[in-house]
Amino acid sequence: MSGRPPLPVEPLTKAAFAPFGDVIEIEGCETRVINQGFALRRHDLAHVAIGEGGRTCVSIFEARRRPRPIAIDMLEKHPLASQAFYPLSREDWLVVVAEGGDKPDLTTLRCFLARGDQGVNYAPGVWHFPVLTIADRQDFLIVDREGSAPNLVERFFAADEIRFVAEN
Amino acid sequence: MSGRPPLPVEPLTKAAFAPFGDVIEIEGCETRVINQGFALRRHDLAHVAIGEGGRTCVSIFEARRRPRPIAIDMLEKHPLASQAFYPLSREDWLVVVAEGGDKPDLTTLRCFLARGDQGVNYAPGVWHFPVLTIADRQDFLIVDREGSAPNLVERFFAADEIRFVAEN
Repeated sequence: MSGRPPLPVEPLTKAAFAPFGDVIEIEGCETRVINQGFALRRHDLAHVAIGEGGRTCVSIFEARRRPRPIAIDMLEKHPLASQAFYPLSREDWLVVVAEGGDKPDLTTLRCFLARGDQGVNYAPGVWHFPVLTIADRQDFLIVDREGSAPNLVERFFAADEIRFVAEN
Repeated sequence: MSGRPPLPVEPLTKAAFAPFGDVIEIEGCETRVINQGFALRRHDLAHVAIGEGGRTCVSIFEARRRPRPIAIDMLEKHPLASQAFYPLSREDWLVVVAEGGDKPDLTTLRCFLARGDQGVNYAPGVWHFPVLTIADRQDFLIVDREGSAPNLVERFFAADEIRFVAEN
């Protein structure tokens, strides 16, 4: 185990997540009555930014639970485009992010507990850990970029930089 | 009730839906192992086409069940952009579309039964009925266009053009 303190788990809110992107949730959104009154449109919940030379891509991620305790031993970012995750089942899940530019600033590492009715949209270039489920399996709808230009940067931590998530 | 025959409900398949857009489903898709083996990426399931002067928009529709029998008494289209629907709960739902240009060709009207793990992405300009649930309420994640240019055309039917869905 690392000597670093466990990473606390915070509630996911728009205010807390603002440095990293959008929380995709209906709370506080613009709502329109559509379809002759048979639907509500919870409008425009994420700032999708795909960048030049790419196109918007819709995918499904089938994510599996990682062994516990969860070791945060790397972060990744997508420099060219945003990446949105929305859960396709209502279980809570976890979101780990950090500030930083060329390298993540590990003093800013944070872990958020997302409810099963909350998604996130990482802004372009935001350092994050891959999708973390609490359930054995959880699927997500993804909106991100397809294109030929490299759009994945990974940084693996030194052994003494690894943090473990303080799940209860 | 209309004198026209009830509209039969067909299974939703990629082949049958090809004239209208994409079926968003994992069957037959490109699959990538990602995230150190802890996730599968079911890649690039919809052709998102937003057009000039707009931007991609992620929203949630909260849809309510319509009274039975379901009267197909209008169709709408979005001439500038595609519109993707993916269900956020696993109940089956219904998709009604027609071919046509300035006006829908009502001789081509079709109703598909979508499984709870199938979404659709209407290609730009495809005539369709608003989202139709079988459950009392079903939510959908939507990927479509935000922009100032008009992007909704509705056509309401004459009384003798109305069709009723042949749900069992």
